Amino acid sequence: MNIAMLGSGFIARFYADTLHAQRRLDRIINVYSRNADNAERFAQDYGLDCFSTSMEETINSEKVDVVIISLPNHLHEEAVMACAEAGKAVLCTKPLGRTAAEAKRMLDAVESAGIFAGYLEDLCYTPKFLKSVESVNAGSLGKILWTKSREAHPGPHSDWFWDKEQSGGGAIIDLGCHCVEIGRNFIGKSVRPVEVMCWADTQVHPIDAEDHAIALVKYENGAIGQFEVSWTFRGGMDLRDEVMGTEGTIWLNSFLRTGFDMFTTGKGAKYVAEKAESDSGWLFPVGDEAHELGYPHMFTDMFDAMDKGKEPRETFYDGYIVNAILDAAFLSAESKLWEPIKIDDWRGDNISEKETNYISHDAEYYLIKKETLPNGDEKLILKSKATGKVIQKTTRN
Amino acid sequence: MNIAMLGSGFIARFYADTLHAQRRLDRIINVYSRNADNAERFAQDYGLDCFSTSMEETINSEKVDVVIISLPNHLHEEAVMACAEAGKAVLCTKPLGRTAAEAKRMLDAVESAGIFAGYLEDLCYTPKFLKSVESVNAGSLGKILWTKSREAHPGPHSDWFWDKEQSGGGAIIDLGCHCVEIGRNFIGKSVRPVEVMCWADTQVHPIDAEDHAIALVKYENGAIGQFEVSWTFRGGMDLRDEVMGTEGTIWLNSFLRTGFDMFTTGKGAKYVAEKAESDSGWLFPVGDEAHELGYPHMFTDMFDAMDKGKEPRETFYDGYIVNAILDAAFLSAESKLWEPIKIDDWRGDNISEKETNYISHDAEYYLIKKETLPNGDEKLILKSKATGKVIQKTTRN
Amino acid sequence: MNIAMLGSGFIARFYADTLHAQRRLDRIINVYSRNADNAERFAQDYGLDCFSTSMEETINSEKVDVVIISLPNHLHEEAVMACAEAGKAVLCTKPLGRTAAEAKRMLDAVESAGIFAGYLEDLCYTPKFLKSVESVNAGSLGKILWTKSREAHPGPHSDWFWDKEQSGGGAIIDLGCHCVEIGRNFIGKSVRPVEVMCWADTQVHPIDAEDHAIALVKYENGAIGQFEVSWTFRGGMDLRDEVMGTEGTIWLNSFLRTGFDMFTTGKGAKYVAEKAESDSGWLFPVGDEAHELGYPHMFTDMFDAMDKGKEPRETFYDGYIVNAILDAAFLSAESKLWEPIKIDDWRGDNISEKETNYISHDAEYYLIKKETLPNGDEKLILKSKATGKVIQKTTRN
Amino acid sequence: MNIAMLGSGFIARFYADTLHAQRRLDRIINVYSRNADNAERFAQDYGLDCFSTSMEETINSEKVDVVIISLPNHLHEEAVMACAEAGKAVLCTKPLGRTAAEAKRMLDAVESAGIFAGYLEDLCYTPKFLKSVESVNAGSLGKILWTKSREAHPGPHSDWFWDKEQSGGGAIIDLGCHCVEIGRNFIGKSVRPVEVMCWADTQVHPIDAEDHAIALVKYENGAIGQFEVSWTFRGGMDLRDEVMGTEGTIWLNSFLRTGFDMFTTGKGAKYVAEKAESDSGWLFPVGDEAHELGYPHMFTDMFDAMDKGKEPRETFYDGYIVNAILDAAFLSAESKLWEPIKIDDWRGDNISEKETNYISHDAEYYLIKKETLPNGDEKLILKSKATGKVIQKTTRN
Repeated sequence: MNIAMLGSGFIARFYADTLHAQRRLDRIINVYSRNADNAERFAQDYGLDCFSTSMEETINSEKVDVVIISLPNHLHEEAVMACAEAGKAVLCTKPLGRTAAEAKRMLDAVESAGIFAGYLEDLCYTPKFLKSVESVNAGSLGKILWTKSREAHPGPHSDWFWDKEQSGGGAIIDLGCHCVEIGRNFIGKSVRPVEVMCWADTQVHPIDAEDHAIALVKYENGAIGQFEVSWTFRGGMDLRDEVMGTEGTIWLNSFLRTGFDMFTTGKGAKYVAEKAESDSGWLFPVGDEAHELGYPHMFTDMFDAMDKGKEPRETFYDGYIVNAILDAAFLSAESKLWEPIKIDDWRGDNISEKETNYISHDAEYYLIKKETLPNGDEKLILKSKATGKVIQKTTRN
Repeated sequence: MNIAMLGSGFIARFYADTLHAQRRLDRIINVYSRNADNAERFAQDYGLDCFSTSMEETINSEKVDVVIISLPNHLHEEAVMACAEAGKAVLCTKPLGRTAAEAKRMLDAVESAGIFAGYLEDLCYTPKFLKSVESVNAGSLGKILWTKSREAHPGPHSDWFWDKEQSGGGAIIDLGCHCVEIGRNFIGKSVRPVEVMCWADTQVHPIDAEDHAIALVKYENGAIGQFEVSWTFRGGMDLRDEVMGTEGTIWLNSFLRTGFDMFTTGKGAKYVAEKAESDSGWLFPVGDEAHELGYPHMFTDMFDAMDKGKEPRETFYDGYIVNAILDAAFLSAESKLWEPIKIDDWRGDNISEKETNYISHDAEYYLIKKETLPNGDEKLILKSKATGKVIQKTTRN
Repeated sequence: MNIAMLGSGFIARFYADTLHAQRRLDRIINVYSRNADNAERFAQDYGLDCFSTSMEETINSEKVDVVIISLPNHLHEEAVMACAEAGKAVLCTKPLGRTAAEAKRMLDAVESAGIFAGYLEDLCYTPKFLKSVESVNAGSLGKILWTKSREAHPGPHSDWFWDKEQSGGGAIIDLGCHCVEIGRNFIGKSVRPVEVMCWADTQVHPIDAEDHAIALVKYENGAIGQFEVSWTFRGGMDLRDEVMGTEGTIWLNSFLRTGFDMFTTGKGAKYVAEKAESDSGWLFPVGDEAHELGYPHMFTDMFDAMDKGKEPRETFYDGYIVNAILDAAFLSAESKLWEPIKIDDWRGDNISEKETNYISHDAEYYLIKKETLPNGDEKLILKSKATGKVIQKTTRN
Repeated sequence: MNIAMLGSGFIARFYADTLHAQRRLDRIINVYSRNADNAERFAQDYGLDCFSTSMEETINSEKVDVVIISLPNHLHEEAVMACAEAGKAVLCTKPLGRTAAEAKRMLDAVESAGIFAGYLEDLCYTPKFLKSVESVNAGSLGKILWTKSREAHPGPHSDWFWDKEQSGGGAIIDLGCHCVEIGRNFIGKSVRPVEVMCWADTQVHPIDAEDHAIALVKYENGAIGQFEVSWTFRGGMDLRDEVMGTEGTIWLNSFLRTGFDMFTTGKGAKYVAEKAESDSGWLFPVGDEAHELGYPHMFTDMFDAMDKGKEPRETFYDGYIVNAILDAAFLSAESKLWEPIKIDDWRGDNISEKETNYISHDAEYYLIKKETLPNGDEKLILKSKATGKVIQKTTRN
């Protein structure tokens, strides 16, 4: 694939480092930036033939097969519209929009234009995550009851993130978009998210947007997708997911505890581990940062899907659903109420009622619990089907 | 100290195992149980002279210095009242009451009677927790922004826990009482908890009470004390706490990952690690369970406080505050609103307004963030004090 | 018990902190130090009535039930002899002697005198270790094949450790004594250690003794007890044990990774975690250091054994065996040969030959391995009983 | 690159899975196997045009740029010779030879032929390892004193591994080759390995080769490269490395503890995590197994080096040195002596004497240690430059 890159900042470089590594087939061939210097520097660093300060020119270059949007949030819509108009396949970084309305317009545009559109939600492509979802789909955890996705670090890299107008919000829009989609993948994308309760505050930084938020996303089947996002964390980048199912548990730690511990007095020559907040003492680097963050597997899925004419794992529709959930989260943080999630175009299942899976002990009782006590006694805790009364039966050891 | 034990169940045995170990001075001398057989068995197991089915007789035994209440929740009040009447020092297991009203009556009774009263909140006495609180109090983490305490396992040991009438609730009352008090200790007991948002559901078990709940407790200074409690967890007993402060982070794992990993094929002779859900494969025992759960340090504090005529770390007042917070949590789970925490007798601080600690970069700007990018550039993100506009200044490497 | 403490240095204080805590019955009543100031300071700090610069006077004080020797290694023998003469029970810190000859004289003296004698090998009393040994004894790991005990830190606390004459050696005698006895407990104290191969070097410090050593202790049943000891480690105190058995594995981490992670920028008020090499960045404190190092459970076993008139878990005979093994290690480090372990008075088992536990697959073959390949094929690897030829049989998926 | 694959077994499939993934440029075009069925199945599975039971035909196919040898150990030499004759670039799996003599002949052959030759030592290409070596080279750990590389699992996948004639040995040749080269990379490939002490035994399996071994490789600068290898481990695949330097420490865990914990009751649908010994309870999968084992980065280095006409990180010369060290290890396991490492053609440095880095405290003393005691006293431990006597100076708090 020949790729046009829109944007030349932190994320564009991360994408480029991934794409131009490990002997991958696909190449970036040109780059657009609003700033000519940045465009030129990027082109030099990645050996590109062209750079431009015209987005249209970049997209419409004949050789271009696919456009990657690595621009600040407030410029996604314009870029997607340009791709739709040009009929070029488009991959857009996360979040898709600043709001569901914005995302919906992008979704509609790519669907009308009939172009391939992928949502670059990298954290839904980390190798640990992919294998976890595979296990969950295979039933290893039974029915999923709750997921928690946490992303916390000391704050983002560019000015526009900190400006609510350009970004669409603070930690919720920047980090929450990852967490929400992680939860959807585990709980099942076909299960409808129905309402959100969110707390958000600006606890530390001199900004208007929230730098810390926690939310509960309730799904139609009773499952909860929790997210915890913060720009106030000290100690590096905290990236953890947890899943609870009726038959099992998954705990993922994607950054600070991955089996790589290093201590240095700092007296040796300097080596700064990325995103660490110090360069001495105990440090926890990751082996290959792009890999741990899911970039290689993400681009592989996108380009393979294009090749095969099928949908990627993460689509613009997914991006729209994420924005719809985040819209409700922002509302809830203001209203302090559980806010309904408004989805114009629900494509998943509709569940009529919550199912229960009570275990029958015998004709008379449900089994609540069976356990062996420290003294060896065996205990059954039972609930009468008729009266609801709870009793216990102990068999002495 | 000569100790009277009220109750002979799981927790009474845990307490007794702790007290009659490690060559400790204080002894249990008699035991009360509603069931004569259980009382007798307990007396035999711990070498006690007396057992009784009369609570009054047990409390009023002349030799008794202090009474430990290890009864189901619905019997705490009656037992505390009997101690107050008898003028005997009393230590009551957690939670203090099923409701704040119940707890308040107990608090008032012991204060009127002028007796020593300790709240047996063991998880606020684990050695890791004690050292963590010491660090936090010493300022190592700066101002505390958020705490999370999580307790989750497959469900409790006795029938009465599962019966809402007797217990006062499900996972919230059983486990949330620990978590709430852990949060208070980190955030500061003098900081007033103001409101609670709680989600609760009965996801798995055939019971009326909740078997899974998550809540956010908001404190007057803006800090959040989160709790996650569940009787639906698979994999053992998950006991974790986290603290975020402006200058640091604490992560505690008190049970499943404490530096003790064991794999067994199960072909050798059988050894069941406690609370583990299996006896083969990878198991994660703890060394000395009572110690990891805080029992020895808790009783040491209680008896030392009695000796010295001072208050223990955890008092009936603390127990009352915990119940007040849980009352709001139960209300919130029903109303789906942030519910105010009603405290009749607030003894801590009252804060007039939330303070900010913005860092001034120069006369014109606040500093939002300073960082070194992967390519070596140094970047400042600044906010104009006058206009609020966010800008960045990059010094190329 | 009334305890006389000989010595007032680092280890004496650790013992005293343990004994005078957690409402324990037994009390130190007097202290001996070669230095009057130190003796006085110790007596003040622990509320003792007496201190003395006369070892004899201290031991012979009428009230004294038991003497604890917390003196430098070269003074153990003199102190043990004085206890034997006085007929007082004695507990001696590790290592027992600087050499097996010294240890043997102490062993003989206490046995002749008929006094209770305990070997204060604290790391064989950590709660994790006690529970591990219990599991191993219960058969959870099958037959033990290999153990590794590792103790490494940046070096000890007092001058005499660094002086070979007084200490008897460097890291081998200081730390190896722990590791050897840990290995013996797992492999079985009744299994005879037969020979040792040891590498030792002085890699960093300006001293005559070794500051780093690794040894393999071979037991009669073929098991290997490995030790790794160092005074050159950076990053805190590394205390890890591993055990491999035919049916399982144990991994213990007793200090640096016990479920307690703390990050601090150091900008808050200062709190130095003990033995950490820094006071900012990621730190890994332990909850209750004495507990993690085994002191409380060690003294409990010692005093309970005295009360019951039985042997403690760790005896002077154990201390002698440890010294015999270390003697061979020192020799081996010089000779570069596997050196035989000379034990004058072997009280354990004698094994005639190494047993094998080959699994028979059928009349013709032993089973080497059975496994499922990634493509689903099932593979048997077999060895002909007659010819010794190895074959594989694959059943395609 | 067009690749010819020699071999169609476990490792050939692992290589192919890596090469034909992640949109990599280079393709396998044909395969050789001694068994026509296996060759055909492999060709089908990976979409190859050709398969053959003739090694020569496969190598000499005109389109082939590079040959990958994935054959049992005893067939490496023949295959390398065929590549040399054909003048085709060759990549050989580990170990290079069964003995140094065999490896030397292969080295000589490829050097005479002037062909590109790469040594497929994957574990020296894991992302964690690459970043660790980068840190070590940058000086973060000061001078390296000791490394330990450990690989242990329940045994290999094919019959020939278990047959000493074909494999050249047991766990030492199979796993030790990885560990030795890991140590060399950390200590420095230019530092000459001089002698080896090795213990080896057949503790569990009915085979002639060793199933468990531990060795110390001594380098000319005093550093020790330790390896621990076993086919008797229970619990999965244990892959850990440790490095100690004068200024720091590295701990790598590449398989069983990488931030991915899963618990499953096994009641859900089945999903078997690879190499795990069970499919219920706590499991520790890795995200992308090939990546964690270094395959993608290894092939990238190999093909990039070919493109640029430079040497890869791991060469046949490295493979030869590894075999020379393992030869000494086998000898030592028999002789029970430290055996010298015989290298015919040493291309690294020769060090005249071991350097010391004593820290001078003042004119009179070396500094041994400076520390703060728990009671706040500051203590200096010093050694007289003149007399060697060790003293301590304490400044009371």
